[in-house]
Amino acid sequence: MKNILILGGFGFLSSNLLKYIDSLNFTEYQFILFDRYNEHPAGLKFSCVKKVYSGDFSNKKIIHQIFEENDIHQVFHFLNTTNPASSEDMRYDIETNLIATIGLLEIMVSRNIKKIVFISSGGAIYSNSMVLLGKETEDVFPESSYGIVKLAIEKYIHLFCARSNMTYLILRLSNPFGLFHYSTKQGLINVALRKMLNNETFSVWGDGTNNKDYIFVEDFVDILMKLIKKNVSNEIINVGSGDTICINDILEKLKQFNTEFEWIYIEKKDFDNLTFNLCLSKLNSLLPGYKFTPIDVGIKKTFEWLKQEHLM
Amino acid sequence: MKNILILGGFGFLSSNLLKYIDSLNFTEYQFILFDRYNEHPAGLKFSCVKKVYSGDFSNKKIIHQIFEENDIHQVFHFLNTTNPASSEDMRYDIETNLIATIGLLEIMVSRNIKKIVFISSGGAIYSNSMVLLGKETEDVFPESSYGIVKLAIEKYIHLFCARSNMTYLILRLSNPFGLFHYSTKQGLINVALRKMLNNETFSVWGDGTNNKDYIFVEDFVDILMKLIKKNVSNEIINVGSGDTICINDILEKLKQFNTEFEWIYIEKKDFDNLTFNLCLSKLNSLLPGYKFTPIDVGIKKTFEWLKQEHLM
Repeated sequence: MKNILILGGFGFLSSNLLKYIDSLNFTEYQFILFDRYNEHPAGLKFSCVKKVYSGDFSNKKIIHQIFEENDIHQVFHFLNTTNPASSEDMRYDIETNLIATIGLLEIMVSRNIKKIVFISSGGAIYSNSMVLLGKETEDVFPESSYGIVKLAIEKYIHLFCARSNMTYLILRLSNPFGLFHYSTKQGLINVALRKMLNNETFSVWGDGTNNKDYIFVEDFVDILMKLIKKNVSNEIINVGSGDTICINDILEKLKQFNTEFEWIYIEKKDFDNLTFNLCLSKLNSLLPGYKFTPIDVGIKKTFEWLKQEHLM
Repeated sequence: MKNILILGGFGFLSSNLLKYIDSLNFTEYQFILFDRYNEHPAGLKFSCVKKVYSGDFSNKKIIHQIFEENDIHQVFHFLNTTNPASSEDMRYDIETNLIATIGLLEIMVSRNIKKIVFISSGGAIYSNSMVLLGKETEDVFPESSYGIVKLAIEKYIHLFCARSNMTYLILRLSNPFGLFHYSTKQGLINVALRKMLNNETFSVWGDGTNNKDYIFVEDFVDILMKLIKKNVSNEIINVGSGDTICINDILEKLKQFNTEFEWIYIEKKDFDNLTFNLCLSKLNSLLPGYKFTPIDVGIKKTFEWLKQEHLM
């Protein structure tokens, strides 16, 4: 059985990945988690998890200890200390994400770890002003420090892998939504659904006409594990559903659950790009004919989960 | 008269720029220098220099003071705390170059400074493994931390300018050589000429077949000032001579000055990329028909200067 270390192991993406692994009774892998928490903040339990370490990602000593105490096969780096909105403290963003990741890469290379999977950001990497196609091979000018840091991490991962036997898989993820998303600030669909359930007014940055690609998180974890099984290596891949939809249309969809649901429009933030294209031809060529969950189905499932959480 | 602040004001590029300005009796600009030294290490004097500040680039207080005490029109950011070889201390590279530059950009934007000129690196940005054309619009995978930091600085400059009225001119410079180059470690032509003058054996990393673009530094400063006069803004431009030549051919050229000159081949370093292409079509379209100094003339001038320095 191979050990996969997940950094950010109690986050939204990992929680879904671990539930998916548990549901499939996947016995090939078991997971070691690193997170700032030492147990899941919402109390979720995963039978595929062998061990949990908690601490600060910048603390190289604890990262070292994890590799010392476990035979790690690969690392899923899902950890962010910032988000596009908070990354206006650029120094903090650079120190706690970029420099901390360099520390991780140094340890991984020194220990001959096979692979790193890094979740980059489709939304933050591509920006509306300069990018025409949203292809992985384009030069990009992120519109936030968060995006620049993601890009710089991609470049350092490439550098470390080019100098060693380590390989990488970098996924530039669009906007995931779905179950086990506990943030009340980030993730349009989840946050709007919460507001609706609480009978609160939702605030839209801008005029709500920005088109974005949304992907149901269960599709994301399924795609990730399919790419891992195919041993896709040293590739940067856009991952989205191809279903681009504007905020106003999403909010209209949510009205089916509560006809009273209301929203207001507030000033657009600098870091929130209006529209971005995410070219999915590379993903499609790797997983031809992949059947994505329709957005209405994903929203319905998310709503049902949130309602249940809400009642508890 | 407009004040230009040069960061790294006593370095190789600035010394040439200031000599050029002095020789042309250019009265439109005067210069304020910031450097870690408070006078030119080799005692050069420049009449276009109004004031000198010395200190650590990471010390935001002194950078602030310069803007407080002077009406700065634009900033030429020529400062590097590392070089491709030394940048293996990645944290130091990120902290003293990237984070310090973010501090500068914050001050510049808050004070409504018109323009930043940043010298990026053609050699470090483009790498042989992935880049086909060496065009400014390509996605790049630098083969050193030095190159990644240069790239990240470019992205932050773009971000700060996109959010303000500041404009940028980013020059991805190839390999400059010429007068006033005092480093005994960096810059192939200068270092090899010094070795030759000292009757020492020169060490070549690799087999000497790597082709690189070399540009005579006097052409570089002339091109820079022509682009400034044309007010070229918000552009990233490769700057090279188009004269690509391998190390072995350069060393053969140096034999004309001393037939005893010898060299040996040692192991290639990771950070030294074998070959890179630098597409110069953007530069050519901005300065059509530009007459570059032939490399033999540049080498001769550099040799004469070094011989004179050597005798002193």
